[in-house]
Parts: sequence; C-alpha cells; structure tokens
Amino acid sequence: MICPIVKLASKLISIPSISPNDNGCQNILIHKLKKIGFTIEKINKNTTNNFWAYRGTGKTLTFLGHTDVVPPGEILQWNTDPFNPTIKNNRLYGRGSADMKGSIAAMIIAVERFISKNSNYNGRISFIITSDEESKATHGTIKVVKKLILRNEKIDYCIIGEPTSNTVLGDTLKNGRRGSLTGEIRIFGKQGHVAYPDLAENPIHKSLLFLHELTCIKWDNGNQYFDKTNLEIVTITSGNKINNMIPGEILIICNIRFNTETTVKSIKLKILNLLNKFNLKNTIIWTLSGLPFLTKNGILINIVRKSIKKYSCKNPKTSTSGGTSDGRFIALMKPEIVELGLINKTIHKINEYTEISDLKLLTLIYENIIEQVLL
Amino acid sequence: MICPIVKLASKLISIPSISPNDNGCQNILIHKLKKIGFTIEKINKNTTNNFWAYRGTGKTLTFLGHTDVVPPGEILQWNTDPFNPTIKNNRLYGRGSADMKGSIAAMIIAVERFISKNSNYNGRISFIITSDEESKATHGTIKVVKKLILRNEKIDYCIIGEPTSNTVLGDTLKNGRRGSLTGEIRIFGKQGHVAYPDLAENPIHKSLLFLHELTCIKWDNGNQYFDKTNLEIVTITSGNKINNMIPGEILIICNIRFNTETTVKSIKLKILNLLNKFNLKNTIIWTLSGLPFLTKNGILINIVRKSIKKYSCKNPKTSTSGGTSDGRFIALMKPEIVELGLINKTIHKINEYTEISDLKLLTLIYENIIEQVLL
Ligand SMILES: [Zn+2]
Ligand SMILES: [Zn+2]
Repeated sequence: MICPIVKLASKLISIPSISPNDNGCQNILIHKLKKIGFTIEKINKNTTNNFWAYRGTGKTLTFLGHTDVVPPGEILQWNTDPFNPTIKNNRLYGRGSADMKGSIAAMIIAVERFISKNSNYNGRISFIITSDEESKATHGTIKVVKKLILRNEKIDYCIIGEPTSNTVLGDTLKNGRRGSLTGEIRIFGKQGHVAYPDLAENPIHKSLLFLHELTCIKWDNGNQYFDKTNLEIVTITSGNKINNMIPGEILIICNIRFNTETTVKSIKLKILNLLNKFNLKNTIIWTLSGLPFLTKNGILINIVRKSIKKYSCKNPKTSTSGGTSDGRFIALMKPEIVELGLINKTIHKINEYTEISDLKLLTLIYENIIEQVLL
Repeated sequence: MICPIVKLASKLISIPSISPNDNGCQNILIHKLKKIGFTIEKINKNTTNNFWAYRGTGKTLTFLGHTDVVPPGEILQWNTDPFNPTIKNNRLYGRGSADMKGSIAAMIIAVERFISKNSNYNGRISFIITSDEESKATHGTIKVVKKLILRNEKIDYCIIGEPTSNTVLGDTLKNGRRGSLTGEIRIFGKQGHVAYPDLAENPIHKSLLFLHELTCIKWDNGNQYFDKTNLEIVTITSGNKINNMIPGEILIICNIRFNTETTVKSIKLKILNLLNKFNLKNTIIWTLSGLPFLTKNGILINIVRKSIKKYSCKNPKTSTSGGTSDGRFIALMKPEIVELGLINKTIHKINEYTEISDLKLLTLIYENIIEQVLL
C-alpha cells in the first residue's frame, strides 16, 4: 500500500500550480480537512486562492504553507516531467516536492493522525494556505492575516513548512528572517556622441566608484540571530546598445537583505549620502518587501528542537538566513514562529526532489509538535 | 520665393532615411545632377544605396556625403516632428538638418551655380553619396572606393560635408580623423539567489574597480594633429531584471578613439593586462572600425581656409577630433581631404537644427572652393 503522505504529495505535484495559480490543490486539502472536522473559510483575492481552516478553540497552533510553485524552468533539462510525480531511488521527484507540497502533505497527515488519536485536545489547530508565496505575495498570506487581525483572531504558535533543512532533515530551523529592500537607482549623465566626450557626461564612468563604495559599505556585524546585512547589485544597465553613443543614464537595481540591527531608514540614508558624496544626479524607487522579524522568545522553539532530536537530527540549529518567507506577514499577529521543512538543496531548480524517508520523518515531527503544544 | 538650398535640404529631411535606408533621397540628388550634365553610376549593396556621379575629365574634386541619418531618439522630446522640416527663428529643424542633409543641399546648389556660370571648367567634379555612414559603413563609401580603385579612377581633392563647425560656420575643418576600436567584454561570475551571496559570485561587484581603472588609463598625450586617445564605456548590462537573482555575467562595450601615437595592438594589450590584474574571467570581441588617418600636405587645405575666411570665419582651425568619417575610406585613394560642414552642436540629438544663414554661407564657401580648384 502506498504511503498516504507520498500519495497526497504526489497528487499535489501533479497539478501545475505555477504561482499564483492554485489550480485546484487547495480543494484537495479542504476536502481532507473537512472530513476531520475543520471549518473552512476561503479568502480568495484576484487570481490568488487562500484559505483559513480551524478546529477547536483556545490556544492556537497554526500551520502555514503555500500550494504555488515556481515555474519548472528548462523542462528539457529535467530527467522527469516536473508535473508527473515520479518515485526513483526512494526519492519523490517533481516541482514542489520540496518547496513545499511535500511539507503540506506532511502537515495534513500529521494533523489527521493526531486527531484520530486525540479528538478532544485542548486548544485549536488551524491552517493558513496560500497560492501566492512564490510570486508577489501581495494577495496571499498578508490578506488572510489582515482579515484575522481585524476580527481579533489570535494565533499563539505558527509552524511554517518552508524547506529550511540543508543536508539532514531538521538540521536547520528558522526563527526569523532578514528584511528585503530593493532600490532602483537611476543615475543621470548627458547623452552624446562617443567622439565628443567633452560635450557629454558618461553616467557609467561617473558611477563606478560610487558603485564600488556601495558594495563595500559595512552595514552592521549581524547579531546572535542574524547574518550581516548584505547588499547585492542585481542589475546594471545603460539601455544603450550602439557603440557610438554615450548613454544618458544608467539603471542600477540593488537588493539589501537586512537584519534587526539596521533600519530601512538608515539604509536609505547611507545610499543617499553616498550618491551625494559623488555628486550624482539620481532618482531612486524603493520597494520594501519585508521587514526583518525574529520570533518572540517562548516555548515553541524548544518544542520543535525536541521533536527534531527525537526523530531526525541531534543538533538542529536556528537560523535567520535565506530569502523572505510568509513569516514576515504572520509575524504581524505576534505568534511564536518556527519554520521547519524539507531539504532545500533542489528547490527552485531542475529535478527538484525530496527523500521519501524525509516526508515520513517530517510528518512524525509535526505530529509530535502538535502533541507537545496541545496535549 | 523660398531659397533653393533650404528647399532641397527640407525635401531631404522630410524623408526618414534612418541609416542605412536611403528611402529615395539619392534619387532626388541624381535627378538634379543629371539635369546639369552629370553621369551617374549607382553602386548599391544589400540595403545600402550609393552613387558615383561625375562631370568633366582630368583633375578631380569630389564631394563626399551621406543621406542616412541616426534615429530621432525620444520623439516626444522633440519640439517638432523630426521628419517634418520646420523653419523657426531662421533655423531649419529636423533630423539630418546639420548631419548632413543641409551640407548635401549646399554641395548640390554650389555645383549647380558653379556650372551655370562656368560650364567649361578644367577638370572633373564628382560626388560619392552613401546611405551607410551612420550605421556599420560596411556597404557604403568603402564599396564605392574599392570599385573606383579597381578601375584606376583618381581623385585629387575631396571635400567631405560632415558637420565640423563648432560655434561659427567654418571655425573648424578636419584634415584627419582618429581611429575607432570597439571591445565587447563579457565578465563572468556565478549566478545565484540574492539571499545566498556566498554561493554566488557577483560579476558586477567584481568588475567595478576594473572598470574604474579602465576609464583612468592614460593612453597617450596626443600630438600636434590629434587629441589624446580616449575610451568610453558605451554600454553596460547584466541582462538580469529581477531583484532576487545575482546575474551570472555582465556585458561591457567600450569604444576607443585613438590617434597615430597609439596602436590597436597596444590598446588590446593594456585592456587584457588590466583584466588579468583583477583576475576576471572574460571574453572579448574586438571590432576595428577604422585606423587613424591624416590628409597628405598640399593645396586644398589653404584653398578651403581662404574660402572660409572670405565668407564666414576669420580663424578657421584644423582638427582631427570627433568621430570617424568616411574620410578613412576615401583616404585609400590618397586625395587631399578636407572635411567642412555645418555646426555640430545638435547632431545626433533631439531638436537638431541648422541656421539657415549657415546653409547659404556654406553654399558660397563650397562654390568658392570649386572656383579655386577648377578655374
Ligand atoms: Zn516555499
Ligand atoms: Zn554625418
């Protein structure tokens, strides 16, 4: 008989739910949750599907996840069809297997098992599931969270199923995330013919030392929870593609992943000061994708560590590295948050997979966490 | 009655002959030249139109020009339609008015006037007109020149109508030009997610100091005829336009305008050494558009000076600055070459214009040059 976790994960993988299109994944989950007594509230926005599901009352443990996946990329480079879940060498291959349809399957089965053994637990189990985590995240978890806050719903503990593990399931869990700020900087010169450089002002030449210093800024030293704040220039372009014109402007896009030691205001100020130092005529468009968050101290992180140690990894470490997650939104409700999921080695890449043994272990860990919190 | 020079220039401007498409300009010129006894030979190559026209025999004075123009750029930034020649404040506005449909009109009218007064001059007047000067120049003047050389045609004197004047018509004429070398440099790093910079290698960050030093190289000090050699970075682009990926490579296009003090070989070597100094993985594609040339000594330059002094500017100076011109090709036939044309302040820019008085003066100057050479 096929393992119910692999079965559910495979069912989800077989649906090409390219972000933000859920494409029917959530109805499968809703169907299963209704059968074990959950109340479902669909909170759809535009093309994004979200739902809030709960069972019980009181102290609340929420599982947060997303049914959307990133595009498969070059399909020809895959050894298998990314949307045809394939088991090979005890691995389950397919887009979303690790990020994060596998984790969602583990959550659902863990909750089913827990309830079948403990139908009268203390407190409440809930789910927030979105289909807009991998794209803009504007109509996803944030919308659900805002709605819940408006009617004074409380969440005490939140487990996020993002693939946090590096080489062994549970070796890393996340108790926070860095913030992300993007600056689109345009630096202006004066366009002109390359043969008359004195009549023009080359915005590329003018910007080079500024850009170099920008990449050398020491923002902070990090702290016990966070890596140092880091800036990357992700785009530079002068538009111009002919060889006899000095361009009139260049566009530089930089992305800053910052921690709780550094504020958005101080980042902007440092960059503006540097632009002024080099006397560069500029415009900047800032986009703040998320502030850094760190889960408040409490019991959840130790509960999660205990469950991981019991089933998988002796020395789980906590980390705040990597990209943003929907944790930044659920943080607005001030629960204790821990992110714990499958191994991230192949996420967003071709031939994404998860070990089947990890799916089983993660389900055991999630179930054990529920037991510790609600029994 | 509208001035025939303005009329002809306007007719040419109204044709959007974006390089290398002549779009019918040359037929207008051919029609006029045939009427005054010129023999026409069309020498078209691919999408480029060229013609060779001549009248008379013996000592030859050639007018060299191009009917193509650079694109208008941001049309919304023009005060007038760039292809709708507009007279305002005694100026003629439109793409090509200064570079160089105005000069072509002046040449044609000057020749018409000269012939109407002196139908039996000594020697030969000729024209080489191309529609591929502003783009690659591979199917333009060079093709005509090669054909003429093959059959042993001689050219003794050549006037090129490029806009050489800076602030007063005739203040500057050119007796040579710098060479032009373009390098397309790709610098490679390692693509990766912006949240994991340690797993990637940002090719933008790696290149900044190299690029700065590249722009600081002292190539030479020029000489009595030539400005210093100069390098401009005309393009920089990382391709990437999403804010969460570190790009895998960047493309830098630099263009070097070099004089007779510096060789192509030494330029390439300096750039390669600098890339090595910064240990940058790279590829380069070089394109040599022209070697520097200087006209041979003779009588033409003094003739031109005399005509300029008579009609416009007391102190014309000779220069080799500015872009390449088709002079580099006609130089293969070893005539005396002088470039003399309208004011270059607005060429290749929005709101390109020429003073109408300059059109009239330039016509007088060209006619006077013909008189001095052929009477
Ligand atoms: Zn994910
Ligand atoms: Zn020109």
